[in-house]
Amino acid sequence: MTTPPLLAGVFAPVVTPFTRDLGVDRPRFSAFCRWLVKEGAGLAIFGTNSEANSLTLAERLGALDRLLGDGIDPAKMMPGTGCCSIDETVTLTAKAVQAGCAGALMLPPFFYKGVSDDGLYAYYSHVIERVGSSALRVYLYHIPQVSGVAISHDLIERLIQDYPTTVVGIKDSSGDWNNTKAMLQRFPGFAVFPASEALLSKALPLGAAGCISATANIQPRAIAQLIAQFGTTEGPPLQQQVTTVRTLMQRYPMIAALKHVIAVNASEESWRTVRPPLTKLPAAQGEELLKQLDEVGFSMTGLQAQEA
Amino acid sequence: MTTPPLLAGVFAPVVTPFTRDLGVDRPRFSAFCRWLVKEGAGLAIFGTNSEANSLTLAERLGALDRLLGDGIDPAKMMPGTGCCSIDETVTLTAKAVQAGCAGALMLPPFFYKGVSDDGLYAYYSHVIERVGSSALRVYLYHIPQVSGVAISHDLIERLIQDYPTTVVGIKDSSGDWNNTKAMLQRFPGFAVFPASEALLSKALPLGAAGCISATANIQPRAIAQLIAQFGTTEGPPLQQQVTTVRTLMQRYPMIAALKHVIAVNASEESWRTVRPPLTKLPAAQGEELLKQLDEVGFSMTGLQAQEA
Repeated sequence: MTTPPLLAGVFAPVVTPFTRDLGVDRPRFSAFCRWLVKEGAGLAIFGTNSEANSLTLAERLGALDRLLGDGIDPAKMMPGTGCCSIDETVTLTAKAVQAGCAGALMLPPFFYKGVSDDGLYAYYSHVIERVGSSALRVYLYHIPQVSGVAISHDLIERLIQDYPTTVVGIKDSSGDWNNTKAMLQRFPGFAVFPASEALLSKALPLGAAGCISATANIQPRAIAQLIAQFGTTEGPPLQQQVTTVRTLMQRYPMIAALKHVIAVNASEESWRTVRPPLTKLPAAQGEELLKQLDEVGFSMTGLQAQEA
Repeated sequence: MTTPPLLAGVFAPVVTPFTRDLGVDRPRFSAFCRWLVKEGAGLAIFGTNSEANSLTLAERLGALDRLLGDGIDPAKMMPGTGCCSIDETVTLTAKAVQAGCAGALMLPPFFYKGVSDDGLYAYYSHVIERVGSSALRVYLYHIPQVSGVAISHDLIERLIQDYPTTVVGIKDSSGDWNNTKAMLQRFPGFAVFPASEALLSKALPLGAAGCISATANIQPRAIAQLIAQFGTTEGPPLQQQVTTVRTLMQRYPMIAALKHVIAVNASEESWRTVRPPLTKLPAAQGEELLKQLDEVGFSMTGLQAQEA
């Protein structure tokens, strides 16, 4: 196995298409991943926005196999692999490494709250030791408002010290810029991904690796362009454009809203399906959202062709 | 399949013994369940105190099989079956029903926070419809401080209305007496289990079914006696006795402390093992706890003989 390079750029926590009876729509999933890659995004499949924790372990393993079988490049993939149990995390992570995925985005175990850094360190180190591969690249996943379990800077430091070539980055979904900034300053060379393209102008000059953002599902190309053209005169208008769309989307329940926008642009109603406990975007909200996106000149192109 | 009666009495959310290398110690698990039943407790295996979410789905299915194979009575069992994904919840719940378990204690999906009652209703109703058995008895599991997802009274009402012979009770681990009381008053005939024996004197007169309490792992007989002798002159001193032990245990991280007490009483050091992200009770705290339990006259008997 070759050593994956540090990842950078824009990653979409890929929303997972379901059939009307709630199964994973694997052909549509492959088509959507293909479109995202074509538009310049990497694939953070099995993230929060992917409803990954509403999938079974077997579904995640099967869906990854299908993507690989359909020719989606594992070098573009950073699957989410963190489960509450060490063994399930090991199973998924080992699979990702074996498949050649560039990295694994790893939630802490999220059932117990108020756990110690020692306990979280033990969890991550058990996973790393048991996967036991020099090709493993772990990106930690800090999303305390959902997981209920924060990843402290002291924990990061300890993991980097003990696993310097394995624990190589973090996705910071806290939405707390001071946290992102402090990590960028304290851990030079560590791949820090804020979870919003709206932060790129502040984060890139401090060395951020890019972003892993929900709304990269619908505006991957614009975000990729912003990163590529950062520092040129194209930067500020692109930043404004992507931030406008991001801000607008945040007024709605994100996953349902993303799926609504994709459903309309792919002309496929089943794309609106979410798994309980999430609920579809109500039709009235969907119309309002589309009108607002239209007003700011938002468009998604090529999706229908990709799925055909 | 016969219809299980409504459960009542004291249930232990059975702590799960691990081997030193973190595997489930199945023989010890069976022995401990046998001891709990002999002492008068029912078996709420795979609960929060069981570290159930630190087990894989396969481990839970396998451990249940082993208990059944070892002759533990499924009529005494109320396994925890609620996972984040509907399919995994269905798999575990169907297994429990097929095994003849008296009930299933069902967490809501606990990854996403701020989800709607509509979404939670859809989750539970999908599970119930897909298990599709008149022998299924669901006990909801309200533990918002850990799961991050509360079960509202309106949701309970809707589930009772639509599934009156299936959704039959709830474990209230909120620690909020006003919540327990309000449910007892609003849902007569619904089996409400507070999560602490300290509340029995207040809850039993209002119709509580019993309790499902962490500390039932170490004082099952005393709690069973309190319930049996409630309203007699034996009641108040028994209530004081069990509350004293409960209050004392609550000063420590509960799961690690329970396992420490059992390890000492079973003369088996490996009982202290917990899975990350939890950590063992530090030795000094363990000594202090044992001294305090000793001072209040606490004892656990027969455990070693059962395991021999």
